[in-house]
Amino acid sequence: MCGSMLEIKLFKDQNLKGYTLIEGFPGAGLVGPMAASYIIEKLKMQYIGYIDSDLFPPITAVHSGVPMYTARLYADPKNKLVVVLSEFTIPTNAVHVLGMELLSFVRKNNIAKIISIGGIPSQQISENAFMIASQQSLIKEGQKYGIKPIEEGVIAGVSAVLLTGASDFNIPMINILVEVNPEIMDPKYAEIAISALNKLLGINIDLKELDKEAKLVEAKVREMLKKTKETHDHYNKAAEAVEPPTYV
Amino acid sequence: MCGSMLEIKLFKDQNLKGYTLIEGFPGAGLVGPMAASYIIEKLKMQYIGYIDSDLFPPITAVHSGVPMYTARLYADPKNKLVVVLSEFTIPTNAVHVLGMELLSFVRKNNIAKIISIGGIPSQQISENAFMIASQQSLIKEGQKYGIKPIEEGVIAGVSAVLLTGASDFNIPMINILVEVNPEIMDPKYAEIAISALNKLLGINIDLKELDKEAKLVEAKVREMLKKTKETHDHYNKAAEAVEPPTYV
Amino acid sequence: MCGSMLEIKLFKDQNLKGYTLIEGFPGAGLVGPMAASYIIEKLKMQYIGYIDSDLFPPITAVHSGVPMYTARLYADPKNKLVVVLSEFTIPTNAVHVLGMELLSFVRKNNIAKIISIGGIPSQQISENAFMIASQQSLIKEGQKYGIKPIEEGVIAGVSAVLLTGASDFNIPMINILVEVNPEIMDPKYAEIAISALNKLLGINIDLKELDKEAKLVEAKVREMLKKTKETHDHYNKAAEAVEPPTYV
Amino acid sequence: MCGSMLEIKLFKDQNLKGYTLIEGFPGAGLVGPMAASYIIEKLKMQYIGYIDSDLFPPITAVHSGVPMYTARLYADPKNKLVVVLSEFTIPTNAVHVLGMELLSFVRKNNIAKIISIGGIPSQQISENAFMIASQQSLIKEGQKYGIKPIEEGVIAGVSAVLLTGASDFNIPMINILVEVNPEIMDPKYAEIAISALNKLLGINIDLKELDKEAKLVEAKVREMLKKTKETHDHYNKAAEAVEPPTYV
Amino acid sequence: MCGSMLEIKLFKDQNLKGYTLIEGFPGAGLVGPMAASYIIEKLKMQYIGYIDSDLFPPITAVHSGVPMYTARLYADPKNKLVVVLSEFTIPTNAVHVLGMELLSFVRKNNIAKIISIGGIPSQQISENAFMIASQQSLIKEGQKYGIKPIEEGVIAGVSAVLLTGASDFNIPMINILVEVNPEIMDPKYAEIAISALNKLLGINIDLKELDKEAKLVEAKVREMLKKTKETHDHYNKAAEAVEPPTYV
Repeated sequence: MCGSMLEIKLFKDQNLKGYTLIEGFPGAGLVGPMAASYIIEKLKMQYIGYIDSDLFPPITAVHSGVPMYTARLYADPKNKLVVVLSEFTIPTNAVHVLGMELLSFVRKNNIAKIISIGGIPSQQISENAFMIASQQSLIKEGQKYGIKPIEEGVIAGVSAVLLTGASDFNIPMINILVEVNPEIMDPKYAEIAISALNKLLGINIDLKELDKEAKLVEAKVREMLKKTKETHDHYNKAAEAVEPPTYV
Repeated sequence: MCGSMLEIKLFKDQNLKGYTLIEGFPGAGLVGPMAASYIIEKLKMQYIGYIDSDLFPPITAVHSGVPMYTARLYADPKNKLVVVLSEFTIPTNAVHVLGMELLSFVRKNNIAKIISIGGIPSQQISENAFMIASQQSLIKEGQKYGIKPIEEGVIAGVSAVLLTGASDFNIPMINILVEVNPEIMDPKYAEIAISALNKLLGINIDLKELDKEAKLVEAKVREMLKKTKETHDHYNKAAEAVEPPTYV
Repeated sequence: MCGSMLEIKLFKDQNLKGYTLIEGFPGAGLVGPMAASYIIEKLKMQYIGYIDSDLFPPITAVHSGVPMYTARLYADPKNKLVVVLSEFTIPTNAVHVLGMELLSFVRKNNIAKIISIGGIPSQQISENAFMIASQQSLIKEGQKYGIKPIEEGVIAGVSAVLLTGASDFNIPMINILVEVNPEIMDPKYAEIAISALNKLLGINIDLKELDKEAKLVEAKVREMLKKTKETHDHYNKAAEAVEPPTYV
Repeated sequence: MCGSMLEIKLFKDQNLKGYTLIEGFPGAGLVGPMAASYIIEKLKMQYIGYIDSDLFPPITAVHSGVPMYTARLYADPKNKLVVVLSEFTIPTNAVHVLGMELLSFVRKNNIAKIISIGGIPSQQISENAFMIASQQSLIKEGQKYGIKPIEEGVIAGVSAVLLTGASDFNIPMINILVEVNPEIMDPKYAEIAISALNKLLGINIDLKELDKEAKLVEAKVREMLKKTKETHDHYNKAAEAVEPPTYV
Repeated sequence: MCGSMLEIKLFKDQNLKGYTLIEGFPGAGLVGPMAASYIIEKLKMQYIGYIDSDLFPPITAVHSGVPMYTARLYADPKNKLVVVLSEFTIPTNAVHVLGMELLSFVRKNNIAKIISIGGIPSQQISENAFMIASQQSLIKEGQKYGIKPIEEGVIAGVSAVLLTGASDFNIPMINILVEVNPEIMDPKYAEIAISALNKLLGINIDLKELDKEAKLVEAKVREMLKKTKETHDHYNKAAEAVEPPTYV
């Protein structure tokens, strides 16, 4: 659409040089949002910015009483992490421009690395993490930690745009993939992904508590995506309704 | 659409510095338009401007014999209020740009505060007002008056765009929300919202007469939304009809 | 659509200062086109210009052997009238831009007044003319001639855009409305409208002959709208047909 | 669509001053393409240019082993003729811009006259040629040759846009129309049109051989339109297919 | 769509002067991708660049562990070849702009010749290669090698845009066409096409091993197109789903 805009905005200037960007947009099995939410909570990351676009559904989330953009960035200066996630599946016509904007953002801020977290629909589900990387050296590194490279395949969505762009611009990027049953959400998926992430980044996001907290966090993610969808659909329906509600 | 325009226009220059903008676009239960209409009538507010857009249905309302834009602004210098409302549900593709334009309008005119009035579809309907605020201090203020903060949720429409923007630009904003049955319209809803508004702004919109006048005002709102929809649909149908009417 | 154009063009420069613009685009009961056609014929008005747009159906009308744009302007210097009419219902996505262009045209040419002619779908049909006016003084004037102001209502289409714009730019405008059964066309409707017009403008369009000529004029209007629609639909169908006609 | 282009391009500079442009785009009964193809063949006209647009189906025709644009211009310096035709029905959203571009082309190249050839769907089919002309003097000229003026009617497509534009820019133009059964193609139609053309231009396209050659030429036209449509549809289907063909 | 982009990008500057561009986008029988893949593999061509567009599905392919754009360019300096292929059927609204960009690319890089490989749906399937060429001299050359010129026909897709453009800009181009059953994929098709290519370019792509390797290569092509489609469809479905997956 003409005049459509998409903007990544930080509330204030941040020095993100050397950070790792973790991307957790919704996809198969919702591994990305589950893992991203848990990491944000566990590391008590700061809400530092958002992505706004008229290609996104016009909805706002409220968390702990605070209104928030539904696509947000969080930072953790200690571990040098930026997490980006959204509370709605990125509409197909926004995927390309969002991926391109994120790549510009990474380059402009001298972010050192991108890690994308997603699921691969699969009949049999192993406990292994898989990966696609933008550089051969990253694959070798991943293999040391037992992450299996995917030899042949096709991926879709923002991480697909990021991967080819990262490869092209020489940005180190790993797409961590977990085998999922796309019909269900399982905290296990997030555990496998974060465990791989810990090894790759040499950080230590505590997974012992994930057992306790998982159900809560995940239920929240699921509830949020459902509510987001319902609220947006409800609005659209009202905008098209022939009759307003009846007078009592 | 390319070349699409949306413009907020005042009939003449107005000093709105320090005013509060009350937003009452149609949403669940039509609380916004009911409350906005009642306030405009009760405070004998002045019709000071309008919003025009080729993204809106091309219709015009007639009130007391005067043709009017269907999205209008009213001002009350005494209480320093500007009310914005529309006689049609804002089309989904106009929500984002309208919200952004309203935020520019607020900033350009040094408007001090935004209060948005809406409904939340709910199974059980209490007599409580709820709120989402752009700043923690506003929540505390609201709580003093018995308005309950919403901890987790999702909202859609222009007030959603306003809330995140207000939060971002540091504009004080409260979204007053009333539990509603979206199938019906009830003057009670407006009463709860205005009562909260009175407390928050320290003003005194007379609610005693709302009992008497409510049915009239509300019936007018409902009639208007129905007529707006019918007229627009009638026009569209005519534009697509294969045959003109038969000659008598 | 991008690059879409809409242009009001006069064949040669005309001094229209002080003229009244009469708008008769198709709407409920086709009162506008009926009245406009009759006035053009009766006053032997001159074809002075047209409106062209790629938002209009790409069709051309032939009248008395002359190809003509299907949205046209006619002038009568004696009575200082410009009539604008179209042989197709203005497509919904062209209504706003057309109304805005007409307002620019009125202002640029110092046209003094706008009179719009339309129908209001109604169960009971009186012989009264109704009106919506852009200024209170015009309502008083209309009432002197027995034209009843509409207190509350909603109108759609080009006349809706003209009314709010006229009101905003301080252009005197009256929308003459006749109660119609939208299923039929009745020369009576045009008679009521023109009779009101005569009084408002202090002119004398002969209505005695309308009885004789009405059926002819009106049948022509109806035939034209039907043909326009058929021809356009026929073309669209051909453009989408899978097979060309069979070879004989 | 934004950025859409439409371009009339000649392979090399041509002096077309004083030429007559003959337009034969597909329409009712395919009279235009039949006549245009026959004229091109009979006069051994030269392929001098083409019309390209991303609003056209992305297809290419092959004639006598040569790939060709599917909308082409041919010239005959002896009779001072330029013929324009297309092998697909012009899509509705391209009609207006194509007509406008052709008018610019005519004016820029000082082309003296436009003759458009088309069909009018009709129950009874006479052997008469009919016409619509941009100027009264042309109608008189046509009548001398027994071509009957159409008094009232509506036409659609590129010739409609050309006619009003020609009339407006003072370009002599005649639209030759033949009564057709839109379900069939008949060489007779082309004969009637070319016969009228011969008289109007004082040229002599040999019609004696049309009997012999007609079936061949016309079958080719029909075959081409069918193939064009099929090929385009086949491509679209493939682009949307869920599965590629099965491996043998 | 406004702001839509399409870009052909090389990873580093390449001297492609005098090269032949081989185009193998998906079409009937998938002859193009089969032949292109085999040639790339057999000649061990280098991945030198890609085509990116927001008109393409937002997907990324992974081959031998490396993420790749799904529309790619490969070069072989020894035989002076550039191969362009895609792992998805080019969407209809991208065909024209892609063809135009490729022509610019050819001209800017002084590429000497274009060879396009495709299939023609056919009832009887011969072992002959057919051709359409942009120049008569090329047809004669092709005929020497037993490639039969197509006299009359219509082709669609990127090769159609290339052919007319090549013809117009005087770029030597041959479209090699193989008769195919569009329902199946057969290594034979690729063999016929490459065999013609060998003769036309005076090169020697080894076909003896095609028997051995064919099934592997072709199965890969087919698998890829299927996966690409599935992945893209899966993503679109998720973006529109009302409910996220159920929590386990």
